[in-house]
Amino acid sequence: MPPIVCVTGAHKVGKTTFLEKLIPRLVEKGILVGTVKHDVHGFEMDHEGKDTWRHRRAGAATIAISSPSSVACIRNVDEEMDLEDVVSRYFWAEDLVLAEGYKRSHFPKIEVFRSACEERPLCGPQDNLRALVADDPVQVGDVPVYGLEDASGVADFLYTTFLKDRKTHKLEVRLDGRKLPMKEFVQDFVIGGIVGMLAELRGWKRARNIDVRIRLEDR
Amino acid sequence: MPPIVCVTGAHKVGKTTFLEKLIPRLVEKGILVGTVKHDVHGFEMDHEGKDTWRHRRAGAATIAISSPSSVACIRNVDEEMDLEDVVSRYFWAEDLVLAEGYKRSHFPKIEVFRSACEERPLCGPQDNLRALVADDPVQVGDVPVYGLEDASGVADFLYTTFLKDRKTHKLEVRLDGRKLPMKEFVQDFVIGGIVGMLAELRGWKRARNIDVRIRLEDR
Repeated sequence: MPPIVCVTGAHKVGKTTFLEKLIPRLVEKGILVGTVKHDVHGFEMDHEGKDTWRHRRAGAATIAISSPSSVACIRNVDEEMDLEDVVSRYFWAEDLVLAEGYKRSHFPKIEVFRSACEERPLCGPQDNLRALVADDPVQVGDVPVYGLEDASGVADFLYTTFLKDRKTHKLEVRLDGRKLPMKEFVQDFVIGGIVGMLAELRGWKRARNIDVRIRLEDR
Repeated sequence: MPPIVCVTGAHKVGKTTFLEKLIPRLVEKGILVGTVKHDVHGFEMDHEGKDTWRHRRAGAATIAISSPSSVACIRNVDEEMDLEDVVSRYFWAEDLVLAEGYKRSHFPKIEVFRSACEERPLCGPQDNLRALVADDPVQVGDVPVYGLEDASGVADFLYTTFLKDRKTHKLEVRLDGRKLPMKEFVQDFVIGGIVGMLAELRGWKRARNIDVRIRLEDR
């Protein structure tokens, strides 16, 4: 799963505007970027009258549409998926995921701050605040502060902090969607066991990403 | 992965209209239905000016939006994802996926036929045609024919043919997205090996779906 960094800030402070500056700077560095928008109310995706819209209205729990240049899906949920689950399901190829909002999550955060909107930043180091993007020389602990226009500086910071020294081995196991916690040496052991078995099979090729899905019982 | 059935037919024959009748009949049976729309040209999802739209325009390769009632994502691709890949990525909970279009795929098909549109159905048994939905007593081999209004009959047919007797064990392994083919006894062996290892770990709980993701190297 790629690293997740939340871009937080007060309502209308300019989170999306800052992301519009930041994303191209990351892309220039060859980083494949994904974004997640947190919507507390419910969003409008799709267009009334389109086939996918009609499928959904008829009762499809999940709809997808696939074309030569893009693929999209909309899924009904009973309760909000947590951010980690959204990223692990939908962002299998990205290097970095920027989440807009999610200020209550435990993920690392960059807060956008404008003195005209709020007196003080919403997050502090206890909220896993890692950087501030501000119009004002505000200080929160020893968190680095970047100007509202300094998207390049923030892109460098993200690269150095979250991408440069990523570990090379990584295992994630989910039981009915819930992550099974594992210490690193256990991860190595399980990876060794699984890759050892699969490597004996005809059709095996060394791959960077191995996805295994097991369904033990049917509905 | 859930079974996939394509709903095919000539342009404007009424595929979506038939799906609008069929989906509620399946849902009534307690079947969780997903749909995939094949779009050969490129589709419009999202709405101009929305935050997700702005993220995408700024260069995000994949965007998602998550709310308490639904989650959606749009992903750029270099080439069209094949239907099986779309379903295995996005439909982990559904019991059945109905794909609109994909008449050239190898998946089982139901063709919607109206004598006003075409002289003969487009697909035959060699295309894995399993049923016809037609306004006319047309015959293609011994493929069953249902009336355009007989969504209940087709729902029963789908349940009996694709859902009633599904096997209980299932394994899918993907190496960089490509499926590793495996005979059934090999699947059982690999499932046994993986579940055996994981079941020794603290935090293990028997689950219906086990997802394992291994990343062997980083970019």
